[in-house]
Parts: sequence; C-alpha cells; structure tokens
Amino acid sequence: MNDRLARVALMRLAEPDDAVMGGLVASCGTESAVAQIRAGRLDPRFVRWFADTCGQGTRGVRGDEEPTERLGRLLASWSARLEGTDPGRDLAEGARIGARLIIPGDPEWPTQLDDLGGVRPRALWLWGEANLRLSCLRSVAVVGSRAATPYGAHVAAEFGAGLGGRGYGVVSGGAYGIDGAAHRGALAGGASTVAVLACGVDVSYPSAHHDLFAAVREQGLLVSECPMGVRPTRPRFLVRNRLIAALSRGTVVVEAAVRSGAVNTAGHAVALNRHLAAVPGPVTSDTSAGCHRLIRQGAATCVTTPEEMIELVGTIGDDLAPEARGPVLPRDVLAPETRRVLEAVPARTGAGPATIAVEAGVDLETVLSCLGGLAAAGYVERVRRGWRLRPGGP
Amino acid sequence: MNDRLARVALMRLAEPDDAVMGGLVASCGTESAVAQIRAGRLDPRFVRWFADTCGQGTRGVRGDEEPTERLGRLLASWSARLEGTDPGRDLAEGARIGARLIIPGDPEWPTQLDDLGGVRPRALWLWGEANLRLSCLRSVAVVGSRAATPYGAHVAAEFGAGLGGRGYGVVSGGAYGIDGAAHRGALAGGASTVAVLACGVDVSYPSAHHDLFAAVREQGLLVSECPMGVRPTRPRFLVRNRLIAALSRGTVVVEAAVRSGAVNTAGHAVALNRHLAAVPGPVTSDTSAGCHRLIRQGAATCVTTPEEMIELVGTIGDDLAPEARGPVLPRDVLAPETRRVLEAVPARTGAGPATIAVEAGVDLETVLSCLGGLAAAGYVERVRRGWRLRPGGP
Repeated sequence: MNDRLARVALMRLAEPDDAVMGGLVASCGTESAVAQIRAGRLDPRFVRWFADTCGQGTRGVRGDEEPTERLGRLLASWSARLEGTDPGRDLAEGARIGARLIIPGDPEWPTQLDDLGGVRPRALWLWGEANLRLSCLRSVAVVGSRAATPYGAHVAAEFGAGLGGRGYGVVSGGAYGIDGAAHRGALAGGASTVAVLACGVDVSYPSAHHDLFAAVREQGLLVSECPMGVRPTRPRFLVRNRLIAALSRGTVVVEAAVRSGAVNTAGHAVALNRHLAAVPGPVTSDTSAGCHRLIRQGAATCVTTPEEMIELVGTIGDDLAPEARGPVLPRDVLAPETRRVLEAVPARTGAGPATIAVEAGVDLETVLSCLGGLAAAGYVERVRRGWRLRPGGP
Repeated sequence: MNDRLARVALMRLAEPDDAVMGGLVASCGTESAVAQIRAGRLDPRFVRWFADTCGQGTRGVRGDEEPTERLGRLLASWSARLEGTDPGRDLAEGARIGARLIIPGDPEWPTQLDDLGGVRPRALWLWGEANLRLSCLRSVAVVGSRAATPYGAHVAAEFGAGLGGRGYGVVSGGAYGIDGAAHRGALAGGASTVAVLACGVDVSYPSAHHDLFAAVREQGLLVSECPMGVRPTRPRFLVRNRLIAALSRGTVVVEAAVRSGAVNTAGHAVALNRHLAAVPGPVTSDTSAGCHRLIRQGAATCVTTPEEMIELVGTIGDDLAPEARGPVLPRDVLAPETRRVLEAVPARTGAGPATIAVEAGVDLETVLSCLGGLAAAGYVERVRRGWRLRPGGP
C-alpha cells in the first residue's frame, strides 16, 4: 500500500484533529502507521515517545488513566474503523464523479497548510475546475453568520465581488448566510472561489446549496479533508474552520454573533499569524456583536470596503486603499480672514463695509480687499445698500 | 472697570479664538487690555513681544505684511467693535432673563478649561438650574451628525440615557440630530445635560429646539462664550467645539460623515488628551464613515454601549464594562470525547455502542462510559435498537 492509498485510509480512521494520529504518522510515516493499526500493535518507540510526552493535549474522558492505556483505547478505535475501509474503492468513487485527491508534495498542494503542523490535513479531496494552489496564493477568507441579516449578506456579496474583481480568490465554508453570499459575489465577479466543506465533497450540505456548489465547481473548487459520503457534524465544522484560515492570506468576519463559528475561524487566523479583519455593523444587531468585540479587543482591523481588506493582506505600499474623504467645498480655498468676512455678509438686504468689518471683527481695509476678491469669485454682489451674498453662490 | 466687566467687553471685541487678543490679555490683563483698545494705543512691550514672535498663527490675508502693521489692523477692528459695547447693559440683560456670567476663579468655573491655554474662554454665559463645574466633573460629550439616521438618533438617545442613568453628565451642542437625541436621552434619564451653543444663550438656534432648550435649562445648563443676542456663524460652531471637548472627560462620536463638525470636535478631544470613542454603524451608511475612519486610524476606541464608554473615561478597574458573551449551552460542560460520542448518536432509530464507537472514532469501553453519563444527564435514551438522542434534549 503506497503513501497515497495509506492517506486515503487514514482519512477514514481518525478525525483530522486527532493529534495522536498526527504524531504516529510523523514518527513512522503513513504506510507504517496503517500497517501497525492493521497488526493491532504500535511501534514501541512511538509508544515510549507518547508515554514520555504524556500524550499532551490528548487526554480523554478519564483524565487520570495511564498514557499507554489511553493509547490502547485509541488503537482499538482506529482498528474498528479500519474494518470496512477500502482506499482503492474511495479513489475509484472519486474518479467516477470527477473529484481528485491531493497529498502533501503534489504540485497542487497549498504549502501554507504546513503552518498547521501536527493537524495539517493528511490529504484533500478537490472537486472543481480551478487549481487549489493558484486560487489560494492571493486569497481572502470571507466568513460570518449563517443567520445573516440582509445587511450582512449584502456586504458579504460586495466583498466577494470586490475581492474577486481585484484578482483575489474568495475562500469560505459554503454555508447559509455570509458564506453563500461571499461565494455568489465572487462568482458574479467572474472570480475563482473555494468552498471548504465539513463533509464529503460529494455531499451537498446544506442541500439547498446544491446549485451553488455546482456553480462553484464550474469556476472554483469544493475542498474537503473528509472522505467521500461523510456527513457533517458540529465538531467537523470547527475542525474545518482551521483550513479556511490556513488557506487564505487573511480572514474577514462580515457578521458574527459573539459566539459563532466565524469567531472560531478568526481565532485560527490569529493563531496562524494570518491577517484578521472585521466589518462593523449596527451596534443594535447581535449578529455584529462578534465583529465589534474582535475590533475592541484589537484582534481584528476594522475594514469597511474590499479595498481596505486588500490593503491589509496585499503588498505594503502597492495596495493602499483610498482613504475616505469628504467633499471639498469652494469655500475651503479661502483664507481664514476672507472666510470670516464672507460669514459676516448678509444674505438678503446689503450691508456696508463698516458694518461687515465690525461683525467680522476685522478692520475696514481688510474688508474692502476681501470683498473685492469675494465679488470676483462670485461669492458676493454689490447692491444699493452695500454688499450681500450672491444668490446661488459662486 | 473691573475684571468681570472688562471680560464682558472683551467677549464683544474679539472672537474667542483670537490668539492675539489672548496674548494681550495674558501679558497686560483684561482691564488694561480694554483701556489700551479704548485709548487706541497698545502697550509697547506687548507690541515688541508680538513683533518678536512674529504673531505666529495670526497671519492675515496679506501674509507678507509687517507684524506691527497687522497689529494695527487688529487694533482698528477691536476699536470699531468697542464703540457701542456696554458691559453693564450686557450684565443687566443677563440678569433680566436669569442667565449668569462666570469667569476664571469663580467657584462654578470648570478648571479643565485651563487646558485650552491661550484660547481659554474669557468668560461664559450660563442659563439653567445646574452647576456647570459639578455637571462636568464626570461628563461625556456625545456628538454627531445633524443629518442623523434613525439608527444614529436611537443610539445617541440610548447613550444619553445610559450615561445619565449612571451619574455621568451629557455634554453636546444642542443641534439637530445626534446632539438633540443625546440631550433628550439624558433628560429622559433624569440626568443633567449641558448644551454648549455657538450663539448667545438667549438665542434659540435651531428655533425648533426652543422647547428642548427650555427643558435643558430646567435640568441642566445652556452654555456659551458668545455675548447675548449673537447669532451663530459657521466659524463659531467650529470654535465652540473645543469647549465641548474640553468640558468633558471624553467624547464619543455616534454618527458622523468623514467631513463633519463631530470629527472636528474629535480632533479637539485628541489635542486636549481627552478620551475619544466612536460608535460603529453600517458600512453602507455615509453618516458612519467618519466613525469608522477614526476607529481605523486608531484615534478612537470602538464603543457599542454606554457601559463601554464609561469603562473608557471612568476609574480603572471600578468601571469595567461587562464583556459581550454568547449563551452557554449545556453541551459546553461535556468533555471533548463525550461530545464526539453524543454527535455520533443517531436522532431517531437507535444505534448500538459498536456502531457509535466507529462513527465517533473512540473505543467501545469509552462509548459505554460516555453513554451512561449522557443518559443520566438526559441527552440520550435507550431504545430497542440501541441508543438515540432523547427528544427535546436534557
């Protein structure tokens, strides 16, 4: 059994976040790992290493048990799953529907996934026309609440289209709400978009997104580290989120409750030293509370446009976003004293220079010179009783 | 003519931000300043000082002119205003309507105004029941756009009531939109509120706020550094903003365009080392763009509730705002492995422990112990075909 087949088998044996399996594969390699599980006996050196490190972060329900004991129970669960696992059949099934499997070292494998260390996916199923590595080279993860408001959905679509239109791939989770709107926005912008699923790539979840997933396959990719046919579970959604954060240069949370999957993804982005941004919203909306907390904590940068997101993840200097500016009014060009004179000129019935001078708090000489300039510029006009504002202005 | 009368006169002679007048008063005192202007001849030492400092920041329309020349023109404008100025009549008029004048050194004078240095107001007209110094000791400036959205008006009222209800005075500018909503919120909360006007305290501007100003006088104060009867001008609004920032411990911008008076007030708050905060809003709303820019620049803290504003300006530790939290679900208390077992238990038709073990990726022994606990907690129940989720949950 070669490395590729072994990884297909391991996908079925252990959940992607199983750090012990990660350690076994790291120390013995994939083929040997499968062989040991089939033989029901683990490499003594690995067992010793596991006992020494006390299997940190792998404590089970019985926190007091011996590491070796715990290892035995894990081996039992792996063996139980190995029965009925047929890697060859999985690959055949993938080929039948047109999906492909990539493993570390393949040309299409995104090397940024190495940042995940022990919980790097053992392999990925891809289904779609795009190239995963190229789609993710310059990409942004747009994530948020399933129960998005119309505001959030609108902003997510704007970001999807804006990022896609500027050559950035849009990575998301294919869920209802923000995810779906971001994917649709990218597709509408003619850009490539990557949906990282918490189930098999052949499983349409949510089923109402069946057509969306078909469109994503045409222009982008469906991605999953779960075997074919696997249904999503709550833990798998959380584990999946680390891939969304790891594949992209940065994550923007468009709308999220304080406690939500999007905030979980944001945590992965920070842990992976990816850029993190959040879009503000009404403080009266619970679905923006998570975004505002991330901004208040200083964990996320406040972004309001796709340009500002690209400024964050793009090349320093080259990708600066235009700063929000107000209108420049004709009055702005006037000198402070001239402006004060203009303010002192009445709107309807004219006033004489002396009155205007007192009102403006400047001397007569200044008033006369200012009035001349203001009249030439069309701000004021001469009337029988003196000067007044020119109706309509300059 | 005593200091008080002299200051009443000076209020009419020069605009509050006239730095040259500030320098004259600082070097010669108020009474002497008025006497010099009346005599039409300035103290030679002051003229020398002005010439030496080249009257920095006082350049007029003719930037090339000599400082002494410029000073002569200023003196001419002051003299022109001095004619027809009668401090005694001003004080009498104030007494008639029930307004009072305070000057530096008076018990009611807010000493935090000293932070304004040369542009500290020479005196203030107050009209209302409250005590200015006490009302501003623990106060927050709530400012924002005149053209507020219903969202902004709602938030401003919430902040006004929330701050007032927690013993904080609410300072604002008495304008349409955010200002008015903040004042009304504070009044509704039975709190004192201070409206700093850009016109005489006896001038109802905007006139539609006549009743609001009457209510503010009952429970708080109308404040102005302008003489009685003076109309507001655009420059006076901007000059007035420095008082709003200086009187309060911190300023919160509720809703503001990128270019707006509220952003101008925010600048004063930063220059005066006061706390600055901004309330986020929809990124689709231009009236929140100024708030988002202040947050993006790091100039303002993102606040979403009055408590968060009080945390900013209040006592460190004592006034911490409750952090936004999501709901705690019963599932949260379960150990990771137990949760995985729970996820693997089918909803309707029961499944045997072995099946659940394979699905959950744990060994049989663990599944049995977990199922026992989950059944005791009411998560799962035993049925003929094995175990299933208990309808309704725990």
